[in-house]
Amino acid sequence: MDVGSYVRIKTKDGEFEGLILPSVDNNIVTIKMRNGYNIGILKEKILDVEILKRREVKYEIPPISIESEEEELISILSTGGTVASKVDYETGAVHPSFTAEDLIRAVPELLEIAKIKGRAVMNILSENMKPSYWAEIAKAIEEEVKEGAKGIVIAHGTDTLSYTAAALSFMVKGDVPIILVGAQRSSDRPSSDAYLNLLSSVLAARERIRGVYVVMHGESSDTFCYLHSGVRVRKSHSSRRDAFKSINSLPIAKIYPLERRIEYLEEVESSEKRGEIEINTNLEEKVALIKVFPGMDGEIINYYVDKGYKGIVLEGTGLGHAPEYIFNNIKYAIDNNVIVCMTTQTINGRVNMNVYSNGRKLKALGVIGCEDMLPEVAYVKLMYLLGNYKSEEVKELMGKNLVGEISYRSRFDTY
Amino acid sequence: MDVGSYVRIKTKDGEFEGLILPSVDNNIVTIKMRNGYNIGILKEKILDVEILKRREVKYEIPPISIESEEEELISILSTGGTVASKVDYETGAVHPSFTAEDLIRAVPELLEIAKIKGRAVMNILSENMKPSYWAEIAKAIEEEVKEGAKGIVIAHGTDTLSYTAAALSFMVKGDVPIILVGAQRSSDRPSSDAYLNLLSSVLAARERIRGVYVVMHGESSDTFCYLHSGVRVRKSHSSRRDAFKSINSLPIAKIYPLERRIEYLEEVESSEKRGEIEINTNLEEKVALIKVFPGMDGEIINYYVDKGYKGIVLEGTGLGHAPEYIFNNIKYAIDNNVIVCMTTQTINGRVNMNVYSNGRKLKALGVIGCEDMLPEVAYVKLMYLLGNYKSEEVKELMGKNLVGEISYRSRFDTY
Repeated sequence: MDVGSYVRIKTKDGEFEGLILPSVDNNIVTIKMRNGYNIGILKEKILDVEILKRREVKYEIPPISIESEEEELISILSTGGTVASKVDYETGAVHPSFTAEDLIRAVPELLEIAKIKGRAVMNILSENMKPSYWAEIAKAIEEEVKEGAKGIVIAHGTDTLSYTAAALSFMVKGDVPIILVGAQRSSDRPSSDAYLNLLSSVLAARERIRGVYVVMHGESSDTFCYLHSGVRVRKSHSSRRDAFKSINSLPIAKIYPLERRIEYLEEVESSEKRGEIEINTNLEEKVALIKVFPGMDGEIINYYVDKGYKGIVLEGTGLGHAPEYIFNNIKYAIDNNVIVCMTTQTINGRVNMNVYSNGRKLKALGVIGCEDMLPEVAYVKLMYLLGNYKSEEVKELMGKNLVGEISYRSRFDTY
Repeated sequence: MDVGSYVRIKTKDGEFEGLILPSVDNNIVTIKMRNGYNIGILKEKILDVEILKRREVKYEIPPISIESEEEELISILSTGGTVASKVDYETGAVHPSFTAEDLIRAVPELLEIAKIKGRAVMNILSENMKPSYWAEIAKAIEEEVKEGAKGIVIAHGTDTLSYTAAALSFMVKGDVPIILVGAQRSSDRPSSDAYLNLLSSVLAARERIRGVYVVMHGESSDTFCYLHSGVRVRKSHSSRRDAFKSINSLPIAKIYPLERRIEYLEEVESSEKRGEIEINTNLEEKVALIKVFPGMDGEIINYYVDKGYKGIVLEGTGLGHAPEYIFNNIKYAIDNNVIVCMTTQTINGRVNMNVYSNGRKLKALGVIGCEDMLPEVAYVKLMYLLGNYKSEEVKELMGKNLVGEISYRSRFDTY
């Protein structure tokens, strides 16, 4: 049974006709059926296989209608990634290449809950994301909202999805929900989470909330998704479907897509859906994120300073510490007007540079503590602030909550 | 009630006499009593205070006996950190300064379970830890075992405790348990975890197991500690007492210190307690740990290469990816015989560079995938391998399990 052949497979559960796709699981045959759906069939369940056409790699995708009776317009912007990916027949690897329209094809139910508009903004694997692309996405959001979209869904690769969510949180001020969604398994795999995640993201985009959020699987089976704050979430597992976790905060809501139901866990800013929107895409790209570790070479800081960097976010240890043997390098940065901020590589918990002498000395040098903000969010925020404010204001604002990225009180139920 | 005054405090629960210590909680008065113990008293419970001696900061610690009827000798090596810290009366911050003997004073019960020997190896905050100190600790362990210790406890600051645990895991091969222990709250605080952690660590050091482990609080209250593998554990919260988590694996055991009971959750290598030991302190210090992020400057890799670095561990995104715009820099490193390894910043999960084209290209460049090994452990392992093996062997061994740092099968119950 070669990939690309068109076959009829007989099992005790019925007959299936379709094109054989490459399968990552040797026990499963995956076929793309005429209706556009993929199905995975356990090899041991197969009774008989009839080859209808051999190795016909190219096949025509049937045309579909994207007409909906719903009034609410939701724009789905595609940027690439697994949620919008298909298999590369040449290398056997997964490539991002579906257009936004293909997303609708994969989840026809979307048309039952909203009027859907698709738009491919770019087509990249999210590991190749750059700050300049964040600006492109922000501009596309602005255009869609100005053209009448009442909610935005952004299909995005999961690798750097949370960085983009943080960037949009600072760059876009709009009276509209902006929902980033990804998938951990491509829709060509039987265990794909693309279907449930997409359906959930459009449900969330219909809500009368404002701000930037992330929708991903809430647990390993297919019952619910979580709605996470765009500045509080992190990809916390390389492969699981429930890889995304809210850090130092609870998820905003649970979304039960099959029941079309949303259960809020946290209060959220409501929207009038007036469609107001304003974007600010100024970013200072000369910002670095540096992980601290025993034996690290502090000269790396001088290297960035000498290269004209304006900001450095340290991912320190514990409560926000760094080795004393790099204090001179930190001083060099601060003496050269580079803003140095401290986060923690523990991921969970808050920076507090008042407890130990190491932290006090760092504070005395002028290092700014980032409270309970994620290192990745602090990196994006520092780019945004340096792109828009003067040095003293940047220092003031880094430790202050702007869009939910910092909470002033620690909660015990978030770890 | 000034810090340093000697007072008698009357409460409805009884009278307490001692020296007033600085308190981090404004609702609590902390005093050090004559018996060496500290106690925290809620201010609202205080009925009367009598000042016996004003501001006498210096006070004499009463001598104690460290004689034990137990046969088994456990050596407690002190390196500094909160578990061995006291408050600096000058700045009010916590400083590491107790000697190992003071640890015994804090937990007299230790003498009921083992013959205790104390030794201060160094006195640093763990954020200032360096690879050369790991070698000093390894040498001290060797000496103690050769002098008859049947188990080793290492009191260590929590910030970089897991880096040291990983380093010792590779550097020390001994038929003896080596237990690293820390505390998240100093013993001068009413909520200190030092007492339970120390007691648990000595219980673990009495076991007939071999290898390097970490003992820390298992939950936020005072019922049990976890015994973690030294190459599988990470500080995952900046301040909680249950900050340490086993990653991609279960903890080895639960330790109930008050019941003197250990419940094993995983199989572990048993020891004959023959006291055999061998250390290898060769490390290549020219190794860097670099976190990958959108917009990063790939030239940082060239910087390290040009500085004579021999190894680079990337903390990539997702399944082990890096932006294509730094591929040239990675190629430059590999062309210059620098070994480049890939881990993931998701912390949980495994690197798999076969799924997406980005990973395949990195693999083709010669980047070595580190399976489900933690980035920090990969950093330490690469230093160790480069210090002892030829380039081709290093490449071969990085992705192979040596001391439990890699498992070849992923478990579903560890996330």
